[in-house]
Amino acid sequence: MSTYIAPLRDMRFAMTELADLGALSSLPGLEEATPELADAVLEEAARLAAEVLAPLNRTGDEQGARLTQDGVVAADGFAQAYRQFSAGGWSGLSGDPEFGGQGLPELLHAAAVEMWNSSNMAFALCPLLTAGATEALRQHGSGDLKQRYLPNLISGTWTGTMNLTEPQAGSDLAAVRTKAVPEGNHYRLYGQKIFITWGDHDMTDNVIHLVLARTPDAPEGVRGISLFLVPKFLLNADGSPGQRNDVHCVSLEHKLGIHASPTCVMSFGDKDGAIGYLVGHENKGLAHMFTMMNEARQKVGIQGLAMAERAYQQAREYAKERVQGRLAASRSAQAVAIIHHPDVRRMLLTMKSQIEAMRAFAYVMAADMDRTHRHPDDSERARHQARVDLLIPVLKGWCTELGVEIASLGVQVHGGMGYIEETGACQFLRDARIATIYEGTTGIQAADLVARKLASDGGAAMSKLVVEMRSVALQLEQSADARLAPICTAFAASVQALEDATEWMLRVLTTDIDEALASSVDYLMMTGYVCGGWQMARAALVASKQDAAGEDQEFHRSKLATARFYAEKILPKAHALQKAILLGASGAIDIPIEQF
Amino acid sequence: MSTYIAPLRDMRFAMTELADLGALSSLPGLEEATPELADAVLEEAARLAAEVLAPLNRTGDEQGARLTQDGVVAADGFAQAYRQFSAGGWSGLSGDPEFGGQGLPELLHAAAVEMWNSSNMAFALCPLLTAGATEALRQHGSGDLKQRYLPNLISGTWTGTMNLTEPQAGSDLAAVRTKAVPEGNHYRLYGQKIFITWGDHDMTDNVIHLVLARTPDAPEGVRGISLFLVPKFLLNADGSPGQRNDVHCVSLEHKLGIHASPTCVMSFGDKDGAIGYLVGHENKGLAHMFTMMNEARQKVGIQGLAMAERAYQQAREYAKERVQGRLAASRSAQAVAIIHHPDVRRMLLTMKSQIEAMRAFAYVMAADMDRTHRHPDDSERARHQARVDLLIPVLKGWCTELGVEIASLGVQVHGGMGYIEETGACQFLRDARIATIYEGTTGIQAADLVARKLASDGGAAMSKLVVEMRSVALQLEQSADARLAPICTAFAASVQALEDATEWMLRVLTTDIDEALASSVDYLMMTGYVCGGWQMARAALVASKQDAAGEDQEFHRSKLATARFYAEKILPKAHALQKAILLGASGAIDIPIEQF
Repeated sequence: MSTYIAPLRDMRFAMTELADLGALSSLPGLEEATPELADAVLEEAARLAAEVLAPLNRTGDEQGARLTQDGVVAADGFAQAYRQFSAGGWSGLSGDPEFGGQGLPELLHAAAVEMWNSSNMAFALCPLLTAGATEALRQHGSGDLKQRYLPNLISGTWTGTMNLTEPQAGSDLAAVRTKAVPEGNHYRLYGQKIFITWGDHDMTDNVIHLVLARTPDAPEGVRGISLFLVPKFLLNADGSPGQRNDVHCVSLEHKLGIHASPTCVMSFGDKDGAIGYLVGHENKGLAHMFTMMNEARQKVGIQGLAMAERAYQQAREYAKERVQGRLAASRSAQAVAIIHHPDVRRMLLTMKSQIEAMRAFAYVMAADMDRTHRHPDDSERARHQARVDLLIPVLKGWCTELGVEIASLGVQVHGGMGYIEETGACQFLRDARIATIYEGTTGIQAADLVARKLASDGGAAMSKLVVEMRSVALQLEQSADARLAPICTAFAASVQALEDATEWMLRVLTTDIDEALASSVDYLMMTGYVCGGWQMARAALVASKQDAAGEDQEFHRSKLATARFYAEKILPKAHALQKAILLGASGAIDIPIEQF
Repeated sequence: MSTYIAPLRDMRFAMTELADLGALSSLPGLEEATPELADAVLEEAARLAAEVLAPLNRTGDEQGARLTQDGVVAADGFAQAYRQFSAGGWSGLSGDPEFGGQGLPELLHAAAVEMWNSSNMAFALCPLLTAGATEALRQHGSGDLKQRYLPNLISGTWTGTMNLTEPQAGSDLAAVRTKAVPEGNHYRLYGQKIFITWGDHDMTDNVIHLVLARTPDAPEGVRGISLFLVPKFLLNADGSPGQRNDVHCVSLEHKLGIHASPTCVMSFGDKDGAIGYLVGHENKGLAHMFTMMNEARQKVGIQGLAMAERAYQQAREYAKERVQGRLAASRSAQAVAIIHHPDVRRMLLTMKSQIEAMRAFAYVMAADMDRTHRHPDDSERARHQARVDLLIPVLKGWCTELGVEIASLGVQVHGGMGYIEETGACQFLRDARIATIYEGTTGIQAADLVARKLASDGGAAMSKLVVEMRSVALQLEQSADARLAPICTAFAASVQALEDATEWMLRVLTTDIDEALASSVDYLMMTGYVCGGWQMARAALVASKQDAAGEDQEFHRSKLATARFYAEKILPKAHALQKAILLGASGAIDIPIEQF
């Protein structure tokens, strides 16, 4: 079993060279976020991840969270680790300084989130959900509600949850039935929610639930849903947790992975109703909840990256240590470490090149989010918002699908040992497998990308993205560095393919929505591969210059090699997807149900 | 949790229309294998799979096999199920009639193996290994050894194992160290073997191990390995099990899946040496073992298909029952079963079309094996042998890789419920995940395909395959049925791509073996996709004719739709792989280890 070491060199490269960390400190509110501070924060985060979170990952998997008469008990060591986590200020890393947050960039937060998830994804889910609840409350809560709850959420003294799903309503929130009956300045909630991540635990003295429910006279469907804050313990006048509220975890799911993250069935109002407070406006709950869903989707995308990175580290170390077989090209009878075998290198580079592409993509988007939030210029904010809106579903869908593939490849590198639980490689596959499902399946992300994002602006944001990609291709073309030529060829072709597929999609969206949706996941994955190619092309341009300048040449030459591998071995997938998209749904929609 | 119902309609189609079951009964020894008999056998096998094996699949997963002081105890119900299995004659379905086997075609056996594995893969591994041991003994054992052991192996009274792997030697059999010291008419074995499937259990009163070991004066490497038969209980003079032999299971692995299949660490000769008998010639053990490995690889390929089919059935039933969301194209507010959603259809057809392609490919190959064994004409036997030799690694590698992908897609169709173990979808993913690893990883299969099979005849067998594929493309082209046109276009292009990639591979094999090996898995997968396309194209030709003749039109029209889906949505992957292959290893081989 390997430990986890944060890939700081590549993280810094993506942050500094690709996401332009240096420029962020010129944004209002981010003046203190200098590269030096960022470096110090990264080092500290890396230490916490390696020394505190990673060692609990395997034991947490084996033991899992447990439901007792007194509620959910976290796996051994988690409560103490959580206290270290919140004492270090990590809960409020990018939180609002007005309520005690550190106000650091989302970009830096993204790197930290990657580390928490690589080292211990089950643990990392707790602050991930808390951040979502915090953001919804910050944006939509009343002043009073914010004063009473935000500081303790931002400091991590309490944790937060998102209560959306009900047994009869998975991704379909229109079907939500939980009732909220008004009573004075609060409501009483009655209903059951399922799949509630960290819905209960013993790590903090309160848990703050954000809950979708319907008031008695609410309209049917999504226009009748409101958002409520329901604390596990009601607050005393001094703000401390007091009386137990009528919300309880009634069972835990037995899952494929993330065993240490309790997935709760939550029951509201078994006795006299769970007291809740309206957040934002009545019947606007879904819109308010989307605030936190976008944040959560970004972070779940980063989970895909994080699991891939952890699986890669484990596979790489195994491949360096495991001596087996001789090299076909050599006449020596000497057995070698399997990392020397060409097919093992292929597997490792398939992992590594896509991880670097995902990381660059995720970090650049995080910086876009910072500009969305902070840029002084309205039009710049709007420009970045459009980019973020367009690509959040791609980040979530593409990175999580790759996370599963890469974790599975990590198992494969180990051969038979990979299938043995003690080795640890399977856990990453089991953990990663949830990420394509929760916070909206890949299919839901693809429908969002195509039927909402593309359709809402007629492809304008995508078209701007393509223009930006083209200018990168042009820079590659104009470079004198011959190593960039194969990258240029492959990348430019993939951009053209993306443009063609987008054109098809925009046309078919208006004529046959089912046909468009049947190809939507292919389109999302294609967009992801090309976005990865875009960032790897940018990385190659930087690496070429740095290599010429004599800077850290081993690193930059290997970056060029990885970018070429991505261009030649991974980007062809974009063309396969384009071909499949342009051929349409192949009549798939019309096969009679009985013939499935 | 779904049950399992054998897909008899599609199995019969593949057997009769594509693998030409009718013609097999003209082969010597297969006279009784008429389509009527085959039908009756399939019905019986389907009943056993559905009624006896499938109900034990989930409980077997939960309980697993256990190691006790008296050896390994199978999961509840397995011993009784095994008795029904062997009492039904299923162990000897294609076994040698001279020793009590039924002598039925491998084609029929392949369909039965699919059913055993779909219904209960952990259980099915036991007869799978027994069949391999049986075949090695039948081909290489002395008359005496065969008389004493074969009848009870063929009847299933005893089971067999394959003992290859040692801790220091995974796929590298040259490193085998187990010792075999001659003593009179037998040997005494000392050593440890790992990953021994069904290495011990309480379902039968003997277990017959086939073991690779070295005699004291054997040469180094693979030329010094011999094959031994080591029974758990030595036989009395009357052939009944007598004295306990010095071979024991000392521990069980804790695995990701196939929990009910005990994966044993076997210790030979802890006390006074395990008594073993030489099978075949000294120092020829590896060649003898390959006999059973080829059989086993074929069956593990079928496991990939079988897990995909089971995952598909589960996902399909869930998609029919689960009501959620409205259709985008409809104005109705009525929620529908998710099978009506275009993206769910895409997932189900991605599963279904590849399952049908794998099944046709596997069954056609099984019929080739029958012709290899039985055809009266030497040149016909040789022709089929060359085809089987070429494609066994493709069947094993491609079908098992697809098995994992499709089982994972099965989880995805379920959304959040897929991640809950009780639903059952995860088990298929966990079980399927081993199949790309054991009996030689996908990388080992690809090296076999490229460096042995392609290289050994300079691509002659592959070239004959391409010619055969071209003639199918021509038939499609000449058909008046317009529904065949898109299939023809896509399939013909994929055949050309395969030919181009083969040409590249043959050239590079002679100049740079590492470069060839770095693309070998891509080449194997590409060959698999095109072979699948070949069989789906043949299926479409048949379906077009049957439809025109008014035969079972719903089935045949849906077969045409599935073939088109495969051609348009799956076959583009072959082009992506071809592109990646032709671009070479992208310098992957030269990156310094420190930069991984």
